[in-house]
Amino acid sequence: MQEETRPASIIEPKVLKGFRDFLPSSEIPKRAIVEKLANHFSCYGFVPIDTPALEYTHVLLGKGGGETDKQIFHFEDNGGRDVALRFDLTVPFARFLAQHQSQLAMPFKRFHIDKVWRGENPQKGRFREFTQCDFDIVGVDNAEADYEILSMMNSSFSVIGVKNYQFCLAHRGMFNAFLAHLNVQDLSVEILRIVDKLRKIGKEEVYAQLVMLTQNERKAQAIIQYISKEDENETFMTTLERLVTLSGGENEHAKRMEKIYGYLLNARIANHFTLDPSITRGLDYYTGIVYETFLTELPDFGSVCSGGRYNNLASLYTKEKLPGVGSSIGLDRLLAALEELKSPLVESAGSADVAILNLQEDHFIHYDRLARELRLNGYKVAIYLANKKIGAQYKWAESNAIPFVIMLSDEDIQNQSYTLKELATRKLYNCKNLNEVCAYITKEKR
Amino acid sequence: MQEETRPASIIEPKVLKGFRDFLPSSEIPKRAIVEKLANHFSCYGFVPIDTPALEYTHVLLGKGGGETDKQIFHFEDNGGRDVALRFDLTVPFARFLAQHQSQLAMPFKRFHIDKVWRGENPQKGRFREFTQCDFDIVGVDNAEADYEILSMMNSSFSVIGVKNYQFCLAHRGMFNAFLAHLNVQDLSVEILRIVDKLRKIGKEEVYAQLVMLTQNERKAQAIIQYISKEDENETFMTTLERLVTLSGGENEHAKRMEKIYGYLLNARIANHFTLDPSITRGLDYYTGIVYETFLTELPDFGSVCSGGRYNNLASLYTKEKLPGVGSSIGLDRLLAALEELKSPLVESAGSADVAILNLQEDHFIHYDRLARELRLNGYKVAIYLANKKIGAQYKWAESNAIPFVIMLSDEDIQNQSYTLKELATRKLYNCKNLNEVCAYITKEKR
Repeated sequence: MQEETRPASIIEPKVLKGFRDFLPSSEIPKRAIVEKLANHFSCYGFVPIDTPALEYTHVLLGKGGGETDKQIFHFEDNGGRDVALRFDLTVPFARFLAQHQSQLAMPFKRFHIDKVWRGENPQKGRFREFTQCDFDIVGVDNAEADYEILSMMNSSFSVIGVKNYQFCLAHRGMFNAFLAHLNVQDLSVEILRIVDKLRKIGKEEVYAQLVMLTQNERKAQAIIQYISKEDENETFMTTLERLVTLSGGENEHAKRMEKIYGYLLNARIANHFTLDPSITRGLDYYTGIVYETFLTELPDFGSVCSGGRYNNLASLYTKEKLPGVGSSIGLDRLLAALEELKSPLVESAGSADVAILNLQEDHFIHYDRLARELRLNGYKVAIYLANKKIGAQYKWAESNAIPFVIMLSDEDIQNQSYTLKELATRKLYNCKNLNEVCAYITKEKR
Repeated sequence: MQEETRPASIIEPKVLKGFRDFLPSSEIPKRAIVEKLANHFSCYGFVPIDTPALEYTHVLLGKGGGETDKQIFHFEDNGGRDVALRFDLTVPFARFLAQHQSQLAMPFKRFHIDKVWRGENPQKGRFREFTQCDFDIVGVDNAEADYEILSMMNSSFSVIGVKNYQFCLAHRGMFNAFLAHLNVQDLSVEILRIVDKLRKIGKEEVYAQLVMLTQNERKAQAIIQYISKEDENETFMTTLERLVTLSGGENEHAKRMEKIYGYLLNARIANHFTLDPSITRGLDYYTGIVYETFLTELPDFGSVCSGGRYNNLASLYTKEKLPGVGSSIGLDRLLAALEELKSPLVESAGSADVAILNLQEDHFIHYDRLARELRLNGYKVAIYLANKKIGAQYKWAESNAIPFVIMLSDEDIQNQSYTLKELATRKLYNCKNLNEVCAYITKEKR
């Protein structure tokens, strides 16, 4: 009568195309970076939220449709509901804001770090499951909030140890003022989309497409002029002045940008920011500053952190206007970049500071006591739990990148002494007490 | 030509039945507990892994089927593949082990904290999306590994500040030896399932079902005798002796249990462990110790941490035998319990240590400088970014549970002094320098 639950044949263990496992060598640095970012955001008074992975399809897509439809994982659940896996953290946040407005004290600063899913065809460095890290300030529209997001982006990169990055800023309002001055404001959405492709398709192709769209070479030329640097020596302020002139004079958006730049200068971080009018961001909901972030050493890697100001994010779900400014770090792409840069951040971290080897099985209570004491002192301690030859135990410690092993001989146990070995050098230390053990391990940790 | 992307009508912002948002008041403690657990597991040399949320349905279900089928979210993706959301972290781990075996140094200790999804009907405290926290030691079958999992369970509860819990242990091998002695080993799966319902349906109903199954009142009575305490004074060791006698004498499983108990005694944590032969765990794959964890003050809440030893977890995917022992904390249920217990762990945490109020918009550079200095000193600082009356700003700080606000008057800016206010007491402190500010905030933080 006993059930046979074990299959006769073996199922091939594999994951879906575009999906992947994270082994400890990748998951340890990923978790460390997430923890660093989350703690850093907290220092600015940002709070975490979480939303479901699965939502009503119509809630996530709105009337939208278009390209997103094909890219999302959606299906009918057992209850006959059309449901979808979230494809970003922005739409669920908009829904969240509309739904919980009355419980949120504005301005509301939140961060959200979690997975999203897209059915697009996987390319190098692109996956169907990836982790986004979003942070936004909602409920206020001013230069101070814009600056705070930019400032936190900058310090975040510094906290996780990324060097040599550049934030490229532009302003949708300024661009629209320019387009109005050129009398092509009706084409703004299409123009934004063409300009957005500049890095991919090059200036000539952008010009050709603009001529096709506007049917006017002079206007296409003017747009090219707007989005191009006059020369490499253009500074933030000279670019800003050029753009103002091209737009027919001063406007509130340019004034906002100047104010933001003043705050960046005051915080001595302006060197990380470039005014780059070719940045447009494809998405329709941006209304103010927009930005992308490039790693100077990996210019072809694309933006690792992007966002901007939107002034009516939750309009699908509420009549209340909720202005905001936010940013999103593509965590997997950033991690891939750090690997390419051979950053120490993604170096394989050890699974422990020290391993206690198993010389004699009936000495386990001594190993356990020692492990507990070292853990109380803040060390990561792995006891080797199997009963294998010492060579296998060394090899295990090395595969786990554990720098030290402790061997307790009979004599050690009697004298309460410790035999410590540094694996890299094979050097032996005979420690008379636990303090000596800690001193050696700590020295190596630094 | 401009697209109209905004719908005329509003979409009702809501989540699916059985799903929920986490507002900061719940997400802050949840993240804090996850971080504490992860750091604690690291102290034992456990390493994190991650696997995809979505997998091939046949990989997750094996030939299995049965009840799980109806409970999982599965569908056909755009590529015609039958895919499913993972319903636990155990099955993906088994697949992971089989797939990456050659890259893992055994014994392998991993933890995995993430969401799983089940389509079951949501009840009080049960959701369709919930967070599991799993930890396992694979590649070794001995009392030391069994003990280490139990010991880490115990210290984990202590690290997150849970008091008054009891781990109830049993041993599948011992139970099977008893059933063999009773000559009903062929019915073991059914007997385990009936006994597993003891807490739900009571002893009489269990007896009735056992009689029905075995067609033998004496045997049913013997099983009831095995799973019941003789009296409340039975200790771990007297229970063990009773079970050995009922099983016809000493066996290797009872010896293993005695050894584990010795280690628990030695580590002075045995008081948290009870030998409870009524614990069986429904799942077929367990072969050694099994356990559940109950909160003494919430006995009806069910187990918040369960698991056991399995000796062939990955058999669906590989012919290699991979013995292991592991445990799973139901994080959402634990959090719900902590809320019910009004634990300080889940008290609404403040979004910052101090808020800098906005008295005059053009003083922002002073607010920003002060915020940067305080953050460098390790404080969480939120600048009030909107331009509202002071009353609204106080209210905002209070809604965010921020204990202090700083107001910089013109005089303060001139003298580099600071006006600090404690919101709970409305007490004002005139601080002559930043050290004084820090001293007051730190005092409160303690």
